[in-house]
Amino acid sequence: MFTPDEAGAAPTGIVIDVIRATSTICQALASGYERAFCTAGVEEARALRDTLGEGVLGGERKAVRIPGFDLGNSPREYLAPTAKTLVLSTTNGTRAVVAAAERCDRVLVASLLNLSAVVEAARHVDEDVLVVCAGVQGTLALDDAFVAGRIVELLGWERTDTAEAATRLVTTWGGAEEAFRASKSGRNLMENAPELEADIPFCARESVLDVVPRLVAMRDGAAEIAL
Amino acid sequence: MFTPDEAGAAPTGIVIDVIRATSTICQALASGYERAFCTAGVEEARALRDTLGEGVLGGERKAVRIPGFDLGNSPREYLAPTAKTLVLSTTNGTRAVVAAAERCDRVLVASLLNLSAVVEAARHVDEDVLVVCAGVQGTLALDDAFVAGRIVELLGWERTDTAEAATRLVTTWGGAEEAFRASKSGRNLMENAPELEADIPFCARESVLDVVPRLVAMRDGAAEIAL
Repeated sequence: MFTPDEAGAAPTGIVIDVIRATSTICQALASGYERAFCTAGVEEARALRDTLGEGVLGGERKAVRIPGFDLGNSPREYLAPTAKTLVLSTTNGTRAVVAAAERCDRVLVASLLNLSAVVEAARHVDEDVLVVCAGVQGTLALDDAFVAGRIVELLGWERTDTAEAATRLVTTWGGAEEAFRASKSGRNLMENAPELEADIPFCARESVLDVVPRLVAMRDGAAEIAL
Repeated sequence: MFTPDEAGAAPTGIVIDVIRATSTICQALASGYERAFCTAGVEEARALRDTLGEGVLGGERKAVRIPGFDLGNSPREYLAPTAKTLVLSTTNGTRAVVAAAERCDRVLVASLLNLSAVVEAARHVDEDVLVVCAGVQGTLALDDAFVAGRIVELLGWERTDTAEAATRLVTTWGGAEEAFRASKSGRNLMENAPELEADIPFCARESVLDVVPRLVAMRDGAAEIAL
């Protein structure tokens, strides 16, 4: 589905917010964070970190770091862990993970960085898989649609019309970076935080991380993600 | 938007269910029906026709004519009017018209048949326009996305990511009939009612009707559409 609110349900959901929340989660866990909690709200993130008694607070609103938080939502800030736990809150992505956790029994976190790994994991799921694009404020985002299209293309399974549309869209761009720059997410990032433009080519790299972040538990409304 | 439930609102909504409800409405009004009522439910349609004391009952479930109804949902059944009023109930399209009527101040009904006329009408609307694809049971349908892409392309306005995706999709097909045959709506029609396959090329003709059906009133939950 192109947006989290679209009709649809399946036992396994694959969530994409490639610019940038799911790229950040993949990078953080690949770098050595043991778990990442996705929270919808900022206060929820602060409260959860207090309850846990440890962890890095990360996240953005309007692309930039939330005041008082340790880190923003740039995957390049997560190349080396500074705690066991990441507590993350972003505008669209962490909400989409929480929404998928409410709807699906199993949730995988996808980006372009871990494309092959997530496709291989999905291949071994003996049931329908729902690919959920976080989008931007409830509407389709071309960057997420691009990654959804790549997943569907590599899986080679029978497709819904939405899945077919996503694979067709992929063919209309020269590559991921072009699609990401054209997308609302990419344009928002470049407008609100031009200093973070390098996140776009960073997130546009395909299959460089061999990780499949999965939902392992819910805690106080937050989705706990680990390998 | 690719589905009626997607987030979004605008003063003017353009509703598309090209296979086949909005094609049927365009054809019926162009042929001389004075008005078409769109109802969500079958019983609602029967009750409204009884209240009106006249009119043709038209519509489908699983592509075929509803038992006891006068006509189905093939635009080829509406080439000559047999009453002043059409009361129509279909699986996705008439619901989408009613949903748009609840969300938008003005509603236009679009198909490929009246593409130029509806684009010209939208051009004179001095406000945002929301293109609503009826889809199939809450999910995107490629046939509606194709028509949405043609509208956006002809309007040439600034585009949301969804609108950009729709215009890009158009470029991936050889033409409307190819897209319609590939779509869930087209496949449903051919599977459930192979005798109606000719509706597909019929609905794939572009700009052959110079009509812009509009919402003129709501009556007992039904959307009254006229020229």
